[in-house]
Amino acid sequence: MRRIVRNGGNHLITTYHSLNPPTITELSEDPSPLEFMRHVSLNRPFIIRNGARDWKALQRWNANYLCTVMEGQTVNVATTPLGNADSVIHLPSSPSSPRGKDEKAIFVKPHETTSPFTTALQQIQAQELHPETHSSSPTHYLQTQNDNLRNEYTSLFTDVPQSIPFARIALNQDPDAINFWLGNSSSTTALHKDNYENIYVQVTGKKHFVLLPPVEAACVNEKAVLAATYTPRPTTTTSDSSGTGVTTLDPDLRTTHLVIRVDDPNQYIPFATWDPDTPSHNPTPYSHLSRPLRVTLNEGDMLYLPALWYHKVSQSCSDEGICCAVNYWYDVDFAGGFWSMANFVRGREGGTERRRRNDKRRKMER
Amino acid sequence: MRRIVRNGGNHLITTYHSLNPPTITELSEDPSPLEFMRHVSLNRPFIIRNGARDWKALQRWNANYLCTVMEGQTVNVATTPLGNADSVIHLPSSPSSPRGKDEKAIFVKPHETTSPFTTALQQIQAQELHPETHSSSPTHYLQTQNDNLRNEYTSLFTDVPQSIPFARIALNQDPDAINFWLGNSSSTTALHKDNYENIYVQVTGKKHFVLLPPVEAACVNEKAVLAATYTPRPTTTTSDSSGTGVTTLDPDLRTTHLVIRVDDPNQYIPFATWDPDTPSHNPTPYSHLSRPLRVTLNEGDMLYLPALWYHKVSQSCSDEGICCAVNYWYDVDFAGGFWSMANFVRGREGGTERRRRNDKRRKMER
Repeated sequence: MRRIVRNGGNHLITTYHSLNPPTITELSEDPSPLEFMRHVSLNRPFIIRNGARDWKALQRWNANYLCTVMEGQTVNVATTPLGNADSVIHLPSSPSSPRGKDEKAIFVKPHETTSPFTTALQQIQAQELHPETHSSSPTHYLQTQNDNLRNEYTSLFTDVPQSIPFARIALNQDPDAINFWLGNSSSTTALHKDNYENIYVQVTGKKHFVLLPPVEAACVNEKAVLAATYTPRPTTTTSDSSGTGVTTLDPDLRTTHLVIRVDDPNQYIPFATWDPDTPSHNPTPYSHLSRPLRVTLNEGDMLYLPALWYHKVSQSCSDEGICCAVNYWYDVDFAGGFWSMANFVRGREGGTERRRRNDKRRKMER
Repeated sequence: MRRIVRNGGNHLITTYHSLNPPTITELSEDPSPLEFMRHVSLNRPFIIRNGARDWKALQRWNANYLCTVMEGQTVNVATTPLGNADSVIHLPSSPSSPRGKDEKAIFVKPHETTSPFTTALQQIQAQELHPETHSSSPTHYLQTQNDNLRNEYTSLFTDVPQSIPFARIALNQDPDAINFWLGNSSSTTALHKDNYENIYVQVTGKKHFVLLPPVEAACVNEKAVLAATYTPRPTTTTSDSSGTGVTTLDPDLRTTHLVIRVDDPNQYIPFATWDPDTPSHNPTPYSHLSRPLRVTLNEGDMLYLPALWYHKVSQSCSDEGICCAVNYWYDVDFAGGFWSMANFVRGREGGTERRRRNDKRRKMER
């Protein structure tokens, strides 16, 4: 009786690509719920060109309208020095690193502040439209990802549908989160995946997606990376009357001089450390097998981004210096075989996936 | 940076079971195409009790009717000594086995003959109804699995639907094969899987299914097993006028004294060697994690058996001593991630799967 030898990821990835097209499916109109369910079943993305043409947001959303509707409201702002929210950066190795840990890579989260919406919008525009005077400015991105369009931005929610009909019917559920995104071309979202079926609609500007299927998990060099947060640099130390040391911040530097502070207690986040746009850095033996799908969403385009697909997202602005999008997250069905197998392929449980932030209902983290 | 260690199949199987119910879903009526597609997407089985109640076959098919309709027609018959068509049997090890091969296990195919339908039916009934006089008889099973209901048994095809409406609409295809099955309680179909979405309908008697999801591949101890075929034992050797040695057969023993003949040239078939009904024989370190679903189909019941599920099938007869069923095979969609990942989990390409026999369009064997 011959022993059967387990295939490597090599065979998995090449088999997958031999059975799937090298391009993304383009639809000219909404799929029926059944047609959509076939895409969900295959876990394959599609784009509907101009699929959101009838949305009020497509007609209305520009800088002036957004400022008018959001007048007087305070919003959360993610601030980073280089537009690299939720990304891995690589530092020189420290000889004092604990044995067995290579802490060259750090997963760094943005500095989160609050700001009047109009101020944040103006900062985003200014960096885009006047780069000569904003070369050292930090990058601001409104991207709370916590169902913010039904909360912080509820004033704008009437301009978009409450759900995507074909997805709602097919998946038999309402969206778990609807997110509003506003940034400029300085922001890039690093390669990651979500435990959600995602319908993504571009409203102003363009989004550039790089998409990798879940079977390419072995390509992305996912590692447990030390978590850190961008933090304003402390500039003065004074003593209060009790004699306790208190660190204060120079208000003028609050958002311009950001340093990386390792989270305390230490935490390791599984995250992709390979980037398909710089494929010679941090590759695995499988990375050369990756066949990224690349697609640009123009204003009004709608993307179905299936659960567990790795995606890297960059953006281009409208003439007004903004890039604005909305996405609908529907819960993935953890039952059946797909999710379990995708995690087996990935080699461990847990998550590079983005989750709704500040949400009590944490997505399943296995 | 911590290394992430690949999970074993252990975690895959326990995760799967923690996310899926331990019983089969029972529906009281046909699902809509969308509802069916959700089951396909999850790769989870269901049963519709009495789902075929309106089929003409349910009203008509009994021994007398079948004989009348099939009068004068010759059919293919699978004959085995113990009702073990397409199964693995275990022989004592031979000291002369080639190095590296343990040929204790043999995958043995039935002896295939042709017979008038009425003769085959009577043999099947006689073995079931008069075991005292047929204890040494071989077992006959009409189970060609080559779309026989639209060919050999076309006279009976008008008694069943040409397709299953919810499956045809959801999968957007007609069945690749529709198979007629007629046997008795002596026949058991060994644990195997098919590259098909399968709708199985019991017409007379009962079928007892044991079902294992594709993630349990590590439980079934699949091995490449030497292929053989049951063959009538040669009894006399004579010489013809040319002096060439010719082997002839005793006609009376043609189907009663079957011996195993290894196929020439040798061929190895990947096949499950663990049986959930005798779990202490040939287990793997994962077999104890298996949680077989067991379901009995009564007359009129319809089972959706998803692609790649392992299934073992035994049967009970009607009062007439027959067990009769029909199944519809719809092509599995090899695109998307599920099929590729299921084969990765399984550890090799290729097939324990049953295929349409004698079919030029071989199912994909990767």
